[in-house]
Amino acid sequence: MKVYKPKNRLTAQEYIDGILQGSRVILSRAITLIESNLESDKILAKEIIQAILPHSGKSIRIGITGVPGVGKSTFIEAFGKYLTSLNYKVAILSIDPSSQRSKGSILGDKTRMEELIHNENAYIRPSASGDTLGGVANKTGESMLLCEASGYNIILVETVGVGQSETAVHGMTDFFLLLMLAGAGDELQGIKKGIMEMADMVVINKADGDNIKKSEMARLQYQNALHIFPQADSGWTPVVTKASSIKNTGIDTVWEHILKYKTLVETNGYFDENRNHQKIKWMYNNINEELKHLFYGAPHIKSKLSTLESEVITSKVSPVKAAQQIIDSFKKNI
Amino acid sequence: MKVYKPKNRLTAQEYIDGILQGSRVILSRAITLIESNLESDKILAKEIIQAILPHSGKSIRIGITGVPGVGKSTFIEAFGKYLTSLNYKVAILSIDPSSQRSKGSILGDKTRMEELIHNENAYIRPSASGDTLGGVANKTGESMLLCEASGYNIILVETVGVGQSETAVHGMTDFFLLLMLAGAGDELQGIKKGIMEMADMVVINKADGDNIKKSEMARLQYQNALHIFPQADSGWTPVVTKASSIKNTGIDTVWEHILKYKTLVETNGYFDENRNHQKIKWMYNNINEELKHLFYGAPHIKSKLSTLESEVITSKVSPVKAAQQIIDSFKKNI
Repeated sequence: MKVYKPKNRLTAQEYIDGILQGSRVILSRAITLIESNLESDKILAKEIIQAILPHSGKSIRIGITGVPGVGKSTFIEAFGKYLTSLNYKVAILSIDPSSQRSKGSILGDKTRMEELIHNENAYIRPSASGDTLGGVANKTGESMLLCEASGYNIILVETVGVGQSETAVHGMTDFFLLLMLAGAGDELQGIKKGIMEMADMVVINKADGDNIKKSEMARLQYQNALHIFPQADSGWTPVVTKASSIKNTGIDTVWEHILKYKTLVETNGYFDENRNHQKIKWMYNNINEELKHLFYGAPHIKSKLSTLESEVITSKVSPVKAAQQIIDSFKKNI
Repeated sequence: MKVYKPKNRLTAQEYIDGILQGSRVILSRAITLIESNLESDKILAKEIIQAILPHSGKSIRIGITGVPGVGKSTFIEAFGKYLTSLNYKVAILSIDPSSQRSKGSILGDKTRMEELIHNENAYIRPSASGDTLGGVANKTGESMLLCEASGYNIILVETVGVGQSETAVHGMTDFFLLLMLAGAGDELQGIKKGIMEMADMVVINKADGDNIKKSEMARLQYQNALHIFPQADSGWTPVVTKASSIKNTGIDTVWEHILKYKTLVETNGYFDENRNHQKIKWMYNNINEELKHLFYGAPHIKSKLSTLESEVITSKVSPVKAAQQIIDSFKKNI
């Protein structure tokens, strides 16, 4: 890794002021700090986050997922435009730990969402990259806090719908929206069942033209399927609707349901309860990651582990005893 | 916890000799040691396991799962009887971390499997109990090693099919068998999708009487469904068959397929590769559990955590920074 301190950095106070004043340029530069792996940037980023923390949280956070091909970018563009037309300020972030490998995350592909990009009340930020899901989730989560402090009151967090990142997005949002397509019953197969269970709302996208009838059938089918899941802690019953991002139909209905959800969970206390739970979970995820890093990064552990691995394979020592040995050695050497 | 040293313990060498000579009584008493939480028993158990380790592993390990009501106990009884009739020695273990809460794990309910219990070549051991899945998995895994050292060449490991324990059983067996029922398409809903993906074989159970036609339809349906999963590392294509545990049909077919699987994976090297991989994974699972135990069990961590939790909730500190603080404190105080 190159070790240099970039010259074009502002002071912490300049970042903080800029963010609180709603400067998009400074917001972007602050997110760049969060995404940076440079030690000096990390220190600066921490100071900024600590300062803006009391100004964060004042938004509704919406997770959006669906397999590639479901029309996620056109939906987000249509939805984002609708929300800004209601005078909301909308920030669009994404979490995609596989972005290096994938054929281009929706938000990474800046040629899409042409209109929304030029909208004053929308802020679009492509995926952060990183080696671990935990690291990427931290970056997206902290970027979200900055956006909120900068006045964005609706945060859309997009994910790709095929991997582990849905749980991460679900863990940082208030409402989880799953985009689906009408089809011959095969459409569930691309999506993991656990994701279906997380959904507060399923939107059958591309419900236009020849597809309308099939979409209504799919809607009923999913509505029935969702009934088999146990009642969510939020007290909300998931809804299934149809939408066409191209024809711009059903977009307002999506927002209506989200508002109904918001009223429900603000009234019954789940909104705050869930936010608190998410913050605590976020902390513990970080602790457990750091703990592993501390252990597996220790040089004496590394060399001992490879010896133990071969002893375990050749049945010279049992896996349970091997674990005990190395933990004992860790305790002694730390 | 009571701290006493039971008087009716043998010496380590007596246990070891008894196990290697195939004594069922001593095998049972050794498994009791493994399941014990007494320190003196743990030390004795470790010594025994270390000694029998070179004699373990000479079996085929078969995981069996399915939701309650699928007829798991009658299937295992029929399958076990069939295998003993072929002169195999069959040990039947189970993993069920929820056994305290559940209405009685199949193997815990000793009134079932009447015939198999009295069979000289079958050894049935009810579920170990415990607080953590990791702890229960260790006990079942180590019991399996003792059974192997005692001459059992087929190990059936049963699990309840509705929780996390399937992954644990899949992680300690060579072949994973999922029992299902014919039904109206609802039958997948009790079982997690991830479990379906682990299956090397699906057996539609209770394929008898009026159920035969429906079972054949279900068989075809599952066979088609399994094709959507990516090819397994073993090179094996999962099969779906029908069986009736009561009419004793299809039981021989199950075994035929397992033998085919065994030949395939012994030839292509996957059998050993997978066993080695499982041993290593077992070690790492234990390391990670112990590591958390070490961290969260430290008194200064406990008190600091509750302070940090409230600071995180009130946004006085960010979750990421809170995690960093407590890890730093752990490093200093250990």
